[in-house]
Amino acid sequence: MTKSSMSRRRFLQSSGAAAIWLPTTVKGYTANEIQSLYVDGQMQEDVSKWELDTPCLCVDLDLLEANIVKMESTVSRNGIASRPHAKTHKTPVIAQMQLDNGSVGICTAKVSEAEAMYKNGINEILMTTTNVTPTKIKRAMNLRQANPRFIQATDSPQNARLLSEAAIAMGFVADIVVDIDSGGHRTGISPGGAALELAQLIDQLPGLNLRGILCYDGGSQHVVGFAERKKQTLERLSAATETYDLFNQSGLSTEIFSGGGTGTYNIDHETRGLTDVQVGSYVFMDAQYIDIGGETNNDVYSDFAASLTILTTVLNDQYEGRVTTDAGAKACTINRPWARVKGAMGMSYTSGSDEFGTLRYEENASHSYKVGDKLELIVSHCDPVVNLYSQMYAIRDDRVEAVWQIAARGMSA
Amino acid sequence: MTKSSMSRRRFLQSSGAAAIWLPTTVKGYTANEIQSLYVDGQMQEDVSKWELDTPCLCVDLDLLEANIVKMESTVSRNGIASRPHAKTHKTPVIAQMQLDNGSVGICTAKVSEAEAMYKNGINEILMTTTNVTPTKIKRAMNLRQANPRFIQATDSPQNARLLSEAAIAMGFVADIVVDIDSGGHRTGISPGGAALELAQLIDQLPGLNLRGILCYDGGSQHVVGFAERKKQTLERLSAATETYDLFNQSGLSTEIFSGGGTGTYNIDHETRGLTDVQVGSYVFMDAQYIDIGGETNNDVYSDFAASLTILTTVLNDQYEGRVTTDAGAKACTINRPWARVKGAMGMSYTSGSDEFGTLRYEENASHSYKVGDKLELIVSHCDPVVNLYSQMYAIRDDRVEAVWQIAARGMSA
Repeated sequence: MTKSSMSRRRFLQSSGAAAIWLPTTVKGYTANEIQSLYVDGQMQEDVSKWELDTPCLCVDLDLLEANIVKMESTVSRNGIASRPHAKTHKTPVIAQMQLDNGSVGICTAKVSEAEAMYKNGINEILMTTTNVTPTKIKRAMNLRQANPRFIQATDSPQNARLLSEAAIAMGFVADIVVDIDSGGHRTGISPGGAALELAQLIDQLPGLNLRGILCYDGGSQHVVGFAERKKQTLERLSAATETYDLFNQSGLSTEIFSGGGTGTYNIDHETRGLTDVQVGSYVFMDAQYIDIGGETNNDVYSDFAASLTILTTVLNDQYEGRVTTDAGAKACTINRPWARVKGAMGMSYTSGSDEFGTLRYEENASHSYKVGDKLELIVSHCDPVVNLYSQMYAIRDDRVEAVWQIAARGMSA
Repeated sequence: MTKSSMSRRRFLQSSGAAAIWLPTTVKGYTANEIQSLYVDGQMQEDVSKWELDTPCLCVDLDLLEANIVKMESTVSRNGIASRPHAKTHKTPVIAQMQLDNGSVGICTAKVSEAEAMYKNGINEILMTTTNVTPTKIKRAMNLRQANPRFIQATDSPQNARLLSEAAIAMGFVADIVVDIDSGGHRTGISPGGAALELAQLIDQLPGLNLRGILCYDGGSQHVVGFAERKKQTLERLSAATETYDLFNQSGLSTEIFSGGGTGTYNIDHETRGLTDVQVGSYVFMDAQYIDIGGETNNDVYSDFAASLTILTTVLNDQYEGRVTTDAGAKACTINRPWARVKGAMGMSYTSGSDEFGTLRYEENASHSYKVGDKLELIVSHCDPVVNLYSQMYAIRDDRVEAVWQIAARGMSA
């Protein structure tokens, strides 16, 4: 795809302006049929996106690749790195693309996610959640035994002692980062003295090797307006920077100081000491992020393109002003803002029903749809949407190029 | 379990009163470990529910069985039948329990769900959604070829003609019900003349065999207050009864007149002609249904017990007035009302974060929790919650009795 056509497409899906070609389905491939056509990494038949059975999850490869390149060029220009969060895509192929393009590693939220990534060839993994139960600690240490590149988080002295005991029992030293609360009080230890004491304990424990700091400021990622977002996250991360200074003054490792996300990826380098951003959604984008506004466009966050879409089919067109589709809450989630019809104007989509989506026309609707028509939705919130599907179709120029397994789907444990 | 202890438990989880025993985990079994312990339908080891790795989905067998018995005894006393909707549980074992207890069949919302049910031994299937694309029609007709008990819905003359052509091409006559709109304008054809004409067409088409009417009044199921709910649904279904009369006057089959749900199961027999209720949620119950009130208790809908729970573990207890758990939106959905802690009072649970749940204490909190403690959540809205998990654990007296595959999980196509 040429640069100009990509810019145009990005404009279309960001702004919702202008019309695109929307064919009625003529053939149709089920998930099993597509899977059987994908052999040794190659599609054995030429399949149009519009012939996929629905609802299904599609990712536009040109847009996905451009998003990854854009992220890498920005963070490297800013002197930091990316350590993308795999909780967003749960897909080893995408993790590998991120690593191949310069990411220093990936993050996972759950140990089962980390296991799925490792099983599929990904080694550079930082698990951002503290494992607190004997089961979870055992799983994490088994993973560390198999994969010495695995890094774990902790947020309390009691937990650090348990991790050290487990590592000693298994005969190795486990790499650890301290998870610091950014103010949301969700996970992490308080910055300052408490975090310093925990780091000193880790440094002394024979089974642990301190690698640095983790401080994810989730609360700032969706602040609307670039200036407001910047102000808030820099303030909230200042305590982490003070802790970073305390670590340095005490001779403790600050090799890793990981934080930030898609909403603050071009702000986080201003947090002194920060080494890498745990960006997730930038690969796919979604309606939630589009609405926060960007540095150059305060209305639309257009730094990254919406590569992830749900394909859905119209099931009923018998009632005035609306049609019913086959993508409801089980295909779209009920996150807000609702999913948006790509390339269309003057209509709203809702997925409040479990099984059915509802598209309502406004006065200036750019299209109308008939039974059997397919349309494409820009997703509401990419992470939980991906978690609903077992595979996604990788599309280039509206053709299926690959079938990717979402290997960590449902891996919430 | 004795009847009195079941009543007490039902009271506890409906009202949220009084304390139950909540041990801190001592061992812990991962999903794979539990699966490997379940051989030939028997657990090979005695495993406590509290030792399951979290988050995970549990169903209390005593409560589930009592719910199924209660539904069957009520509808049969009222002279109708149940045709439970498998979109709720997506689990063949539960479908079989429903059939074994007297249900005349099950419903599915999607053809992929119907395929998964049939593949797992369930024959009596009515698919409630019209298949509109060539792919979906082909799949439905393949299923009909394998399973002559499969019944399909249609809601337009064009679609009926396509179905008839497909059936003729495959050499059989397909059983069909007319889906009638109950006023929500989501699916179905308008009642009255339009529905009658469609039924007459079906009756004439050589590939189709008319079996009756489908009219699901989803909009009434969650109306708060029994009297209001009764009034609304009887009004809304009156047009379907008029259509039923038209069918009868024209000599068309009304062998099936299926409608209703968990919120109206003890009202729907008053809709003249109705043969069976498409009840789904009653097997599990959830916070959404508990809040609608029942016939005998206007505050709590206690006709059925909350058998389905999510087990979750406390990950962080360092901050005043709250703890963080491992069950967020990807484990609980973000449906409202939020999930509730079973057996506890004076606390609220939210799962707005993708990966983490937040439990906040109120002044009169009946418990407090430490890191590693497990708690059980009554789910918010059972259907989309079940759709997040690959298996559920069947529990009796707090012991794992079986591991059930949620065979139709993610089957939205």
